[in-house]
Amino acid sequence: MGILPIDSGRYGSREIKKIFDEQKRLEYILEFEAAVALAQSDHGLIPKSASDEINFQAKSGKITLARVKELESTTDHDMASVVQALSEECSVKVQPWVHFGLTSNDIVDTTTSMQLRDSFEIIESKIRELVFILSNKAEAFKNLPAVGRTHGQHASLIPFGLKFAVWAAEMVKHLERIEEGKKRFLLCKTLGVVGTGSLMGDKAIEIQRQVSSILNLFPVDAATQVIPRERLAEVQFVLSLIGTSLDKIAIEIRNLQRTEIGEVAEEFKTGQMGSSAVPVKRNPIKSERVSSLAKLLRSLLNVAMDNISLWHERDLSNSANERFTIPMGVILLEEMLSTMIKVVGGLSVKTEKIRSNIDITKGQIFAEFVLESLVKKGVPRIEAYRDIQRVAFEAKDRDLHFIEAIKNDSVLSGYFTLDELKYLFNPENHFASGKKIIENVSLIVNNQIMSSKKSTQ
Amino acid sequence: MGILPIDSGRYGSREIKKIFDEQKRLEYILEFEAAVALAQSDHGLIPKSASDEINFQAKSGKITLARVKELESTTDHDMASVVQALSEECSVKVQPWVHFGLTSNDIVDTTTSMQLRDSFEIIESKIRELVFILSNKAEAFKNLPAVGRTHGQHASLIPFGLKFAVWAAEMVKHLERIEEGKKRFLLCKTLGVVGTGSLMGDKAIEIQRQVSSILNLFPVDAATQVIPRERLAEVQFVLSLIGTSLDKIAIEIRNLQRTEIGEVAEEFKTGQMGSSAVPVKRNPIKSERVSSLAKLLRSLLNVAMDNISLWHERDLSNSANERFTIPMGVILLEEMLSTMIKVVGGLSVKTEKIRSNIDITKGQIFAEFVLESLVKKGVPRIEAYRDIQRVAFEAKDRDLHFIEAIKNDSVLSGYFTLDELKYLFNPENHFASGKKIIENVSLIVNNQIMSSKKSTQ
Amino acid sequence: MGILPIDSGRYGSREIKKIFDEQKRLEYILEFEAAVALAQSDHGLIPKSASDEINFQAKSGKITLARVKELESTTDHDMASVVQALSEECSVKVQPWVHFGLTSNDIVDTTTSMQLRDSFEIIESKIRELVFILSNKAEAFKNLPAVGRTHGQHASLIPFGLKFAVWAAEMVKHLERIEEGKKRFLLCKTLGVVGTGSLMGDKAIEIQRQVSSILNLFPVDAATQVIPRERLAEVQFVLSLIGTSLDKIAIEIRNLQRTEIGEVAEEFKTGQMGSSAVPVKRNPIKSERVSSLAKLLRSLLNVAMDNISLWHERDLSNSANERFTIPMGVILLEEMLSTMIKVVGGLSVKTEKIRSNIDITKGQIFAEFVLESLVKKGVPRIEAYRDIQRVAFEAKDRDLHFIEAIKNDSVLSGYFTLDELKYLFNPENHFASGKKIIENVSLIVNNQIMSSKKSTQ
Amino acid sequence: MGILPIDSGRYGSREIKKIFDEQKRLEYILEFEAAVALAQSDHGLIPKSASDEINFQAKSGKITLARVKELESTTDHDMASVVQALSEECSVKVQPWVHFGLTSNDIVDTTTSMQLRDSFEIIESKIRELVFILSNKAEAFKNLPAVGRTHGQHASLIPFGLKFAVWAAEMVKHLERIEEGKKRFLLCKTLGVVGTGSLMGDKAIEIQRQVSSILNLFPVDAATQVIPRERLAEVQFVLSLIGTSLDKIAIEIRNLQRTEIGEVAEEFKTGQMGSSAVPVKRNPIKSERVSSLAKLLRSLLNVAMDNISLWHERDLSNSANERFTIPMGVILLEEMLSTMIKVVGGLSVKTEKIRSNIDITKGQIFAEFVLESLVKKGVPRIEAYRDIQRVAFEAKDRDLHFIEAIKNDSVLSGYFTLDELKYLFNPENHFASGKKIIENVSLIVNNQIMSSKKSTQ
Repeated sequence: MGILPIDSGRYGSREIKKIFDEQKRLEYILEFEAAVALAQSDHGLIPKSASDEINFQAKSGKITLARVKELESTTDHDMASVVQALSEECSVKVQPWVHFGLTSNDIVDTTTSMQLRDSFEIIESKIRELVFILSNKAEAFKNLPAVGRTHGQHASLIPFGLKFAVWAAEMVKHLERIEEGKKRFLLCKTLGVVGTGSLMGDKAIEIQRQVSSILNLFPVDAATQVIPRERLAEVQFVLSLIGTSLDKIAIEIRNLQRTEIGEVAEEFKTGQMGSSAVPVKRNPIKSERVSSLAKLLRSLLNVAMDNISLWHERDLSNSANERFTIPMGVILLEEMLSTMIKVVGGLSVKTEKIRSNIDITKGQIFAEFVLESLVKKGVPRIEAYRDIQRVAFEAKDRDLHFIEAIKNDSVLSGYFTLDELKYLFNPENHFASGKKIIENVSLIVNNQIMSSKKSTQ
Repeated sequence: MGILPIDSGRYGSREIKKIFDEQKRLEYILEFEAAVALAQSDHGLIPKSASDEINFQAKSGKITLARVKELESTTDHDMASVVQALSEECSVKVQPWVHFGLTSNDIVDTTTSMQLRDSFEIIESKIRELVFILSNKAEAFKNLPAVGRTHGQHASLIPFGLKFAVWAAEMVKHLERIEEGKKRFLLCKTLGVVGTGSLMGDKAIEIQRQVSSILNLFPVDAATQVIPRERLAEVQFVLSLIGTSLDKIAIEIRNLQRTEIGEVAEEFKTGQMGSSAVPVKRNPIKSERVSSLAKLLRSLLNVAMDNISLWHERDLSNSANERFTIPMGVILLEEMLSTMIKVVGGLSVKTEKIRSNIDITKGQIFAEFVLESLVKKGVPRIEAYRDIQRVAFEAKDRDLHFIEAIKNDSVLSGYFTLDELKYLFNPENHFASGKKIIENVSLIVNNQIMSSKKSTQ
Repeated sequence: MGILPIDSGRYGSREIKKIFDEQKRLEYILEFEAAVALAQSDHGLIPKSASDEINFQAKSGKITLARVKELESTTDHDMASVVQALSEECSVKVQPWVHFGLTSNDIVDTTTSMQLRDSFEIIESKIRELVFILSNKAEAFKNLPAVGRTHGQHASLIPFGLKFAVWAAEMVKHLERIEEGKKRFLLCKTLGVVGTGSLMGDKAIEIQRQVSSILNLFPVDAATQVIPRERLAEVQFVLSLIGTSLDKIAIEIRNLQRTEIGEVAEEFKTGQMGSSAVPVKRNPIKSERVSSLAKLLRSLLNVAMDNISLWHERDLSNSANERFTIPMGVILLEEMLSTMIKVVGGLSVKTEKIRSNIDITKGQIFAEFVLESLVKKGVPRIEAYRDIQRVAFEAKDRDLHFIEAIKNDSVLSGYFTLDELKYLFNPENHFASGKKIIENVSLIVNNQIMSSKKSTQ
Repeated sequence: MGILPIDSGRYGSREIKKIFDEQKRLEYILEFEAAVALAQSDHGLIPKSASDEINFQAKSGKITLARVKELESTTDHDMASVVQALSEECSVKVQPWVHFGLTSNDIVDTTTSMQLRDSFEIIESKIRELVFILSNKAEAFKNLPAVGRTHGQHASLIPFGLKFAVWAAEMVKHLERIEEGKKRFLLCKTLGVVGTGSLMGDKAIEIQRQVSSILNLFPVDAATQVIPRERLAEVQFVLSLIGTSLDKIAIEIRNLQRTEIGEVAEEFKTGQMGSSAVPVKRNPIKSERVSSLAKLLRSLLNVAMDNISLWHERDLSNSANERFTIPMGVILLEEMLSTMIKVVGGLSVKTEKIRSNIDITKGQIFAEFVLESLVKKGVPRIEAYRDIQRVAFEAKDRDLHFIEAIKNDSVLSGYFTLDELKYLFNPENHFASGKKIIENVSLIVNNQIMSSKKSTQ
């Protein structure tokens, strides 16, 4: 009977939530302590036998969450309790070398990076899946003429696939941001209480480098007690930005699914209830959920920005809120990605409606091309503009097709042959570079997916 | 093994969390459906027998969460499932009258108001408790001279109690905001799918008025499918604002507890570990937690603001995030209030250190009074200002007490007798209206607590 | 050649911007200093002759911005320079009594309240103007049946005027918030350096009360060097909330003006260019501007919230940003209000299109009423729901009018006579309490405007 | 008499503000139109003579702001007026080819990129200047032992220079973010009304590529009418993040300058007035201003995030607010950078006070090292922890030096020789890797500055 809808099971996959449950966190901590012991023994700071025993016990499965909780109830300190639980499994001789030279926050910050490392793997794979679907849709509809709308008004023509290509291109940029950012996001810190590596003396930097390498993380160059919070703010920014791109897609789908537009529709499960009071509704609820969660995701960025200016070598005012914002950021985004993969993957595209919507303005959507044609014929742009505006507004008032209005107009009719008008009012003639752009995006997507396959091999 | 620290048990009292658990939510819904049935039967819309049966079943305890969940697994619609679960306990004749004329969101919005109604009761009571403690502390330290600091610099003298009085006065304003706001926050809506009360015909407004009265809520004047989200934004604002006032107190305590200042200290449990690496630390971790949660609480306000501009008679983009933000807003604030009650209630005030800190600047803290005295003696303000600045800066450079520097200065020494200087450099002489302000705040607090006692009787 | 579009003249009326220009600010300061002198002389703190001279000089017009700027270039302190400029116009005997016992921030905070006092007068008057227009539109279209949309889908019927009534009701709440808030927003402070009224001794509170009364402000109960920033955060919240309500209206208009919906249109000036490339466009650019500025206005609230937790008796980290956020908040909102007054006042409402849009779904919009009718006839709700859903979805797939599909369906056709169907499918029969709600809102609006007329008499 | 403090001259250098004034904007637009004409003629879309004439007129200085304003007063469209002003200087034959195939927003988005291109040059150069100063300070104080503080409490020892090294390292990361981001930020778009390059046919992509190259920008892969707003959100994020790092430094300086700590002080101009009422104050007002502006800068990020989800091929709801947020983001950051360069460059570091502060806790700051020494001697960590805590807390209560308390304690005294204690309580012995970290950062800084010198050659 959870209260918040992540714990109640409403949002977030089992896979991503596992990364943030207490058992997995315990395992990350033990893995970290083992890595530190190994690096310290390699650099002669602690005996090899100590490192061996710590590594053995850390992986033994004997350190349980139950025992940690028991210890926490007296110490009131979650990290210290894990250390104690590990310690008590070790021999007396080895105990001094458990957690040697570290401060609790070395654990907190580094295991957060381990969580992020594993989270980004899932997130990147879902982005790639979505990019692939988007790019395929772009190709599938690259020859379908459709209305392009600005200010909510019909403006000009696009190949319908271009919408998907714009999104795919933007999603590829998100992969680029993650890849470039990892060296800043996924940081390992073992520099102790105030960032000097105090008890590890002049070996602290080398030890940190080795631990980073074992854990597939990056060593922090300089730190206080904590890794600079700029880094986590950048993580939340990237998560938020991706989520906002998904919101952009969701809003487009919600708009295109409007009763009056009807160009696309979310899949509708048999037996699903759209509305409890109105049986005929088919609502784009998945896209609406993405829009809703995007607002929440975005708000977490503000918290992360506010955490940057800690006092001196750190204060604790980042701690309690990061217990929320880090899992929420990752889990909400993964939920949104999964949802959009389903929505776009299963999207019903109404090609006939898309074609017929072009005619809603009775030819006025071709005004841009009529204008340019006049300009090329030598009519001053401003004069041409005013003439077209006049004829078009009159045509609208009299519910006349724009092509007829032009034919009837004493000024405009003189400029065009019937064949020219026919050419101008055929949507297929106005794709311009639309298809090429779609194909370029496909190339970019393929390169990206190829390169990412290589990098994960 | 919760993921977010509300469900994992870390934050939030049992009492406040109960309001948001699924069982209690079910009870609110049943209470709402019963109230609607009663009002509808009173207004002749449904048979009295139907209302009686619905009221009986709603309170029977037979409608269980388990059954609701079972139904939801096929309908995918949480509110519709509760209605169905209630319906199936009623006789066939009565079933048509269950949830009659309502839309799901009537339930969602009105039960949210019921949760807020009960939450504010707890929150207001905690604010009053804190106000009382603050006001007592203000009185307790109204004769203790202390340093007043601006820009982090010693500036002038205050009675130490004034700090608490300022906070108490601000907390009283929060009670005022809640009281005045309730008529806007705690709304009941039974106007159906698009806000016309469609199936209840011309009785819809009267029915809504009666339901509001039964549930101790206020009827909405006009709505779409949803209560205007301005109202929930105002709720989140008030919660955030209170939380930010608590943050202000917390930051002051954290600053006053600095090693170098040492004027107060949070209570420190025997056996508590301040730092895993540094045994001597006594950190103000409770206040730091309040500061941390305040940032998170504040971010929820942005989500609520973003939910206002829904499309047409509503879209669903408020829904998923409100499942987080409403419980989080209330629960986080309650956690913070409880924490600050403990912190301020158990605060150790170091009166000797407070007194001795006045001497840190070797008399320079009295500069304001020396200046004013010179001005009153007829020295032009700007001339007096420059002389004092000159003497004070020199005194500082030479590590001399300011009173000695004045005596040594050929210009300034001429203006003062020794007795005058003695008077000027005595902190007890500079409380001005400080005590009166404290006493006025006490009066305001007492009036407030009296009036609230009356209003809850 | 301004850089930001307030100074470049793009946004903000002359009237509201005047309140924030440097000349007017100087006048507010002089008015404040004069009021303080008067109160201090009335309480025996300074000679009556001093107060008289200060009051005379303050209103003499001799203290010029030019002189203040000149002084500021050496002192680097804007408030101190005004004091000096006033001082040098006074006789030597009076000079000590200029700005007596005050700190610079007493001026800053109190004159800000004076600016807000005058700004709210303009803002309230514009809100009332908008409320009046909205309420009239609500009445004008209370008999026009229109589509109600949820999730972007046609859902049910409303009187078109209800949209305006919902907005009018919400705007009345904003007036309520401002009225109730004034006692918290419009604060006067004369309590000096650290909030004790240090140099005014035990008269400080009475003096502050009198100054407040002269300036038509409210005395602060308790303060540090500054008025608690909770107060300004509440001001920015109210400004933001009003702006977001305007955004809600703007978004509705932008949606209703979509080419495919066409129910309303912003006025279009003759000669106006909708788009430089597409001559036929008539874009809702005024509403879009309101939406755009609303985002900016909302962001200022975060700054105001972040200013609350100042250190000790104040730090300066609120100062530089308030130079932006206070004028921006007020000026942007006034611009948005003026724009929405024009947009709604001049809105072209396309009644024919509104009526014809009801038929877009070929009768499916009446599904709610068919459902309820079946339920009243004793069909179990879930069974009725499923039948209607089945018939409606089939009708849509076969492009059949819903009423025909019902007649053809072996199950549903049995339940209805032709007359019943005719009744159910007539939009005029489904206004329910829609008109009553509109009329109630008119009453509320009239009461509000009456009461405000009284209060400003 | 500006209203907002950018236009009033308070904030922002002449150099950075020039980029955003209307004259410079006009020049950017003409440069853009000229580049497009050249590319179009190279690709055979317009006659070479037309391109030559457009290029000549664009650079002639004959197109004036005055004329543009005049035209705007009738068209109500700022970009169209520039085009018209350029057009009217061209011969009739050439006029059709002015702005050929473009939409107004191609100008808006591309010239914004030109402004950002030039702004980042200034910003990067100031960051490098600051990095250089920080790195030098780090080196200068790498041997000065200082208190490291966590939770506002003395925790352990650092070389004072480490503070500067942490900041320098973070600033280098900002340079990395800008460098990596440029390919995403500095975009050129010439793809017309709906992103297909409609009137340029299949040459649109090549033309865009050439224009990008001429303007030292990057072509957008795919766009609607506008460049995806994700890109501007990333720009605002980077600006905000840098500003927040500056806030972090500012807060540290404000804290270290506290009267009670006194480890640093901002430069204080002779004649400067710290406080109008208190002549002796030396306030860290420059750092406070940076903190204040940082809050405002951060808030702009929210606006940029909210602009991403535009409808369809664009709506206008990003436009009005970007007129504020883009210049404000850049100008505020530049002001803050200039201020911090002055503050850090002129910072007075009080080495004696830094040394003497180490003694404030009477030796307790060495507790970490005593603990670790005991652990190494074989005392179980938890036992050692409790003993040290006990002895230290008693010492504090009795105002005894910790070293004396250890000597007096029957348990602890047994573990240490006097020499060992002397070693443990000497701050110079606890720098650990502190110096190495500082030196590593210096290397990173030098490499960065070297590489950036190369890249700008």
